[in-house]
Amino acid sequence: MNKVLYVIGIALFVGIVCSSLLIADEGMYPISMINTLDLKAKGLAIEPSDIFNPDEISLIDGICNVGGCSGSFVSDEGLILTNHHCAYGAIQRASTTEHDYLQNGFMAEDRSTEVQAKGYTVRITESYRDVSDEVLSAVKEEMNLAERTKAIEKKMKEIVADIEKENPGKRASVSEMFPGKTYVLFIYTYLKDIRLVYAPPQAIGNFGGEEDNWIWPRHTGDFSFMRAYVAPDGSPADYSKDNVPYTPKRVIKVAPDGVNDEDFVFILGYPGRTYRHRTSHFLAYHQHHYMPYVVEWYQWMINEMEKMSEQDRTIALKHVSMIKGLSNVMKNYRGKLIGLKRLNLLDKKRYEEQELQEFINADQKRKENYGAILSEFAKVYDEMTGKLEYELALRYLLRNSTMLSLAYRVYEGSIELQKPDLEREAAYMKRNFANTKRRMQLSLQNYYEPTDKIVLKEMLMRASRLQSENRLAPIVDLIGDKDAEDAIDEFIAEAYAKTGLAKEGFAVDAMQKNPEEVQDLGDPFIDFAGRLYVLMQEQKEIDKARKGALDKLYAQLIDVKQEFLATDFIPDANSTLRLTYGYIRGYEPKDAVYYSPITTLQGVVEKTTGEDPFISPQKLLDLAEARDFGRFEHPKLKSVPVAILYNMDTTGGNSGSAVFNARGELVGVNFDRAFEATINDFAWSESYSRSIAVDIRYVLWITQKYGGATYLLKEMQVLDAE
Amino acid sequence: MNKVLYVIGIALFVGIVCSSLLIADEGMYPISMINTLDLKAKGLAIEPSDIFNPDEISLIDGICNVGGCSGSFVSDEGLILTNHHCAYGAIQRASTTEHDYLQNGFMAEDRSTEVQAKGYTVRITESYRDVSDEVLSAVKEEMNLAERTKAIEKKMKEIVADIEKENPGKRASVSEMFPGKTYVLFIYTYLKDIRLVYAPPQAIGNFGGEEDNWIWPRHTGDFSFMRAYVAPDGSPADYSKDNVPYTPKRVIKVAPDGVNDEDFVFILGYPGRTYRHRTSHFLAYHQHHYMPYVVEWYQWMINEMEKMSEQDRTIALKHVSMIKGLSNVMKNYRGKLIGLKRLNLLDKKRYEEQELQEFINADQKRKENYGAILSEFAKVYDEMTGKLEYELALRYLLRNSTMLSLAYRVYEGSIELQKPDLEREAAYMKRNFANTKRRMQLSLQNYYEPTDKIVLKEMLMRASRLQSENRLAPIVDLIGDKDAEDAIDEFIAEAYAKTGLAKEGFAVDAMQKNPEEVQDLGDPFIDFAGRLYVLMQEQKEIDKARKGALDKLYAQLIDVKQEFLATDFIPDANSTLRLTYGYIRGYEPKDAVYYSPITTLQGVVEKTTGEDPFISPQKLLDLAEARDFGRFEHPKLKSVPVAILYNMDTTGGNSGSAVFNARGELVGVNFDRAFEATINDFAWSESYSRSIAVDIRYVLWITQKYGGATYLLKEMQVLDAE
Repeated sequence: MNKVLYVIGIALFVGIVCSSLLIADEGMYPISMINTLDLKAKGLAIEPSDIFNPDEISLIDGICNVGGCSGSFVSDEGLILTNHHCAYGAIQRASTTEHDYLQNGFMAEDRSTEVQAKGYTVRITESYRDVSDEVLSAVKEEMNLAERTKAIEKKMKEIVADIEKENPGKRASVSEMFPGKTYVLFIYTYLKDIRLVYAPPQAIGNFGGEEDNWIWPRHTGDFSFMRAYVAPDGSPADYSKDNVPYTPKRVIKVAPDGVNDEDFVFILGYPGRTYRHRTSHFLAYHQHHYMPYVVEWYQWMINEMEKMSEQDRTIALKHVSMIKGLSNVMKNYRGKLIGLKRLNLLDKKRYEEQELQEFINADQKRKENYGAILSEFAKVYDEMTGKLEYELALRYLLRNSTMLSLAYRVYEGSIELQKPDLEREAAYMKRNFANTKRRMQLSLQNYYEPTDKIVLKEMLMRASRLQSENRLAPIVDLIGDKDAEDAIDEFIAEAYAKTGLAKEGFAVDAMQKNPEEVQDLGDPFIDFAGRLYVLMQEQKEIDKARKGALDKLYAQLIDVKQEFLATDFIPDANSTLRLTYGYIRGYEPKDAVYYSPITTLQGVVEKTTGEDPFISPQKLLDLAEARDFGRFEHPKLKSVPVAILYNMDTTGGNSGSAVFNARGELVGVNFDRAFEATINDFAWSESYSRSIAVDIRYVLWITQKYGGATYLLKEMQVLDAE
Repeated sequence: MNKVLYVIGIALFVGIVCSSLLIADEGMYPISMINTLDLKAKGLAIEPSDIFNPDEISLIDGICNVGGCSGSFVSDEGLILTNHHCAYGAIQRASTTEHDYLQNGFMAEDRSTEVQAKGYTVRITESYRDVSDEVLSAVKEEMNLAERTKAIEKKMKEIVADIEKENPGKRASVSEMFPGKTYVLFIYTYLKDIRLVYAPPQAIGNFGGEEDNWIWPRHTGDFSFMRAYVAPDGSPADYSKDNVPYTPKRVIKVAPDGVNDEDFVFILGYPGRTYRHRTSHFLAYHQHHYMPYVVEWYQWMINEMEKMSEQDRTIALKHVSMIKGLSNVMKNYRGKLIGLKRLNLLDKKRYEEQELQEFINADQKRKENYGAILSEFAKVYDEMTGKLEYELALRYLLRNSTMLSLAYRVYEGSIELQKPDLEREAAYMKRNFANTKRRMQLSLQNYYEPTDKIVLKEMLMRASRLQSENRLAPIVDLIGDKDAEDAIDEFIAEAYAKTGLAKEGFAVDAMQKNPEEVQDLGDPFIDFAGRLYVLMQEQKEIDKARKGALDKLYAQLIDVKQEFLATDFIPDANSTLRLTYGYIRGYEPKDAVYYSPITTLQGVVEKTTGEDPFISPQKLLDLAEARDFGRFEHPKLKSVPVAILYNMDTTGGNSGSAVFNARGELVGVNFDRAFEATINDFAWSESYSRSIAVDIRYVLWITQKYGGATYLLKEMQVLDAE
């Protein structure tokens, strides 16, 4: 699956273009660039203004963000098509021992039996505008780097607050396009009553599981249908049985005939994060330090959790979701590390930067303005590299132990909640606080004390071995002059025995007390978190200063690069709406191997071993055996297409995005990339960058023939209504 | 690698044709059928009589059997091109600690530095003729089934003895084509002075190792050069430095430009054993009983040996060759089992047999003659299935423990050597005895007592658990009324402490004593082997009776099948000279994956991880980086071709076979099959049956550019002599 992966707190912005890798179809284009692309020459059969038109209804109005993924409105009654893995939480939460919808799939017989998708919201982009001048007006010459960052952050919060006040029921967000240079304000409608309509069983929706994750050829029916509801007056509303289906401004038409090799396709979606504009220093930091550290640590945790899981099915279930998340990142990083080595990307970047430096040096004025920027980058990233072990030790302590993580929320929350709303950390602002509380409560669902102890001990032991400037004072204090392991064992034994955090509701209640009351609780984890809080405050200052430095440097770099290459750049992905286009196309992953771009039901049958994750429902096998393909048989492949592959430019966050054909009809639902394309986040290449969608023909075939939800095909006007 | 795999003692002959699977290019044609094939219409550019002509020199005269593999004479001075894995034993035996030719490769600077390939012989087919009538004249009406088999075996030995007497220096062999029906006499010249000329390092010759074994795409430079010598008068002679290079009757021309997709190709070689004519009962026996048993047992032994090997490099080295052999069979069987399941071959055979039965029943006379044969087959194979555990327990006891295996040779040999030569088991006949002694001595080279003990104990424990008719009397006696494990531990402790068999030369000496003297040795292993000998004698009678029954049934089956299908059949492979033809062609191993048929040096570089078995010599990587391809660059692939894939019909025993182009020039050296093609032995299919050769361009490029043996290219007339 193609989930958003980067959650690292380090500076996340802009840079240089990796020119030698720029090839024809690269690009996650901001929606404002659509008209510059000459899409009709590339194969688009409709007008670019049919895709986006600020003054009229266009395709954009038919797509949404649902539960962090992308989705498409495929009927005028609020029906949404997205990925199975995007609806996963809703399916899981609706499941009971008697009704295991993950296992068996879910089909609402009619509207009244649709089930609430708790915690899900749907976000629809209403409008956007450039607010760069307004944001940058907050920056004063005399500010230092950290102050610059804070001033910008504050201004962004103020703009959002103003807009949300002016537009009741809407939400706003300011996104950095080129940080330090361009900022865009987006205004969204949020719908809050979302329901589950149809989900195939896991054996279809997650066929191949972790083993096939990031893999082509793929045979996963990764789709589900949901529905958005609003109050009878059409306004967004919380769940109520009086609500009525939402009428989208635009319905996306599904194309039951699907696509073929070399067909033009495009995607509108919300890609999370790419790093293509970053310098070689950033790449070296990731390739040689950050990713190897994460891969090793995640693998260690996975191994421990798998050992724990061997004992007992109930215990195993508590670890499933955590292992899945860790594996997803780890497999992605492994793919990236292989790709970086194979492409020799670091050397290429360095070579380009050398050329740029020569260009800069060739002109006295340029040399004065930009002569030092590359060495300034080196300084920032060198400093980051030096502190990497310290910083990751600190961050993982606050993330990978459920107890310590909850303790930190309590400690931090009790301080933040005393502040005026606009000055708080985002998690504690009124607009986000309900969500923060919900997450804290959810984190106890998969809590298993023995695992939490093992993981915390290992983190403390590792941290205790750090030397000189990388030492963490609270751990040095904790150990004192004792043997490190004895001291840590002692702390852990006492803390888990005494803490109240494992009790439901305790943390959320405690967080809402004032700092003195929290201290009076005498909870060992909260006390220890308080000592780490001091380090985190320092760290945040450092992060802001780094971001200030890098924003300034990257803004300068963009300027001089534009001068050097005489071209415009596409900003790195930042979870804002983007268009990418390309073609249904196979590739050669290695010598003498070619992957063609359409898999089939026959391949599902061939992969089915009867062992997890390659189990298929008997009914599916029977339908395949009987060749009961309805109208969905591919004329050449003589089977139902299951997944499609294309050379579009996607990344995490594109999950659930509609894949459109040249006529703007939906032909697939994007859900993953091929293994070789994990490197996409650093560099795109026509030769190996491929993304994966479930084919609309499989979606419709499963829904009709397997699921029996024929009424949905009628609702989508694929079948005539009776 | 594509070694001969089937060494099972069960009846090995004839049967029914699997008609629904007969497709265009299937066939390992006996050389006598060449003229019936219309090869020119298929793409052959020379005359069929250029391939084989009993009256003139033809291509056949340029090929040979070398060390059990096939080889080609590629110069008029006895230069032979074959596989690296075929020359492996010679390279290993020539290696010393100072000169590790396996590791570093071997290159003779000139004739005087070629090293003797100890134990290697070269066999050249001189002539053949049908001797069916003569062989079958030995069978009398009144004989029972076992007597029939013995009479045929005796007659075959007599024919061979007569011919060898008439033709001093030649060797003869009678091969069953359709057992019970057709027999062919082959006369061979044997050369005994064979030398190693050039072998690449293992990192090239065995690149990919076990991991890539049976795998396409392949990047193994599996080739070596050897040279045959004869006495100055041209007669075969033992090694002597006065010997001169052998002048073959025909030199095979190498084609330095290689082949391309869809080019016509053919192979002349000695495929070992196929089972396509067998009935469904045979297939069921293998699929459900024999192969699963072997896979489980081999995997058990491999696991134990790997555990042992972890301790120490010296110990690991003793297990390498055994593990390699076991893995090779196991991976092949696993591939077959997957293939059998995927193809549903058993059901297909059963359906065909049902149709045949209906055809038989439709005519009263046919019904009288053939009505019962299918049920007779069922009886024989049912009986075999019932005794499988007993028989395999007995056979593996005598094979998988070095001590017990040597003990058995001693006991059996002391009896056999008392008999007249022609009545002996083949291993003890004068013509084979030297080889038998050599093998016994070699078996101690990799002997490691702790492993032998573990394996023997496990076999005895497993045998002790067999029930009723499957019990082995000597093991029942050994245990008596003690606890099985205690008794077995006791026996093992005593036997290994007391035996002399681990001493070099002991077994060979002991074998040549008479039975009483052997008994007087009081060796516990030999005594125990003596008790197993009794069971083996019974078993041999049973085997001969089964063979008698099956030969008769299969001969009948062939007759009625010919009547039913109105066509002739190709006999199953039986290590005799065969021709197969086809085309350089890729395939689709699974949904959405296509393998193209030529791999390249670029693929070697990509596969090189630096970890065994994917290590490449630095010089090779440097040559690739420098694109120093000489004349061997593929015009489209822009790299040196490494391996080629084709849809010809091969099996174990085809290793080292020349792959010829349409003009009868050598374009590759066959060495393996693709994984999906392991099923070949049971059924061939255009869709997945693919075999693998090292491309002549890689052979020549490595020899010249990597090895620096430019003189060999001149000798082969690829480069002009100076």
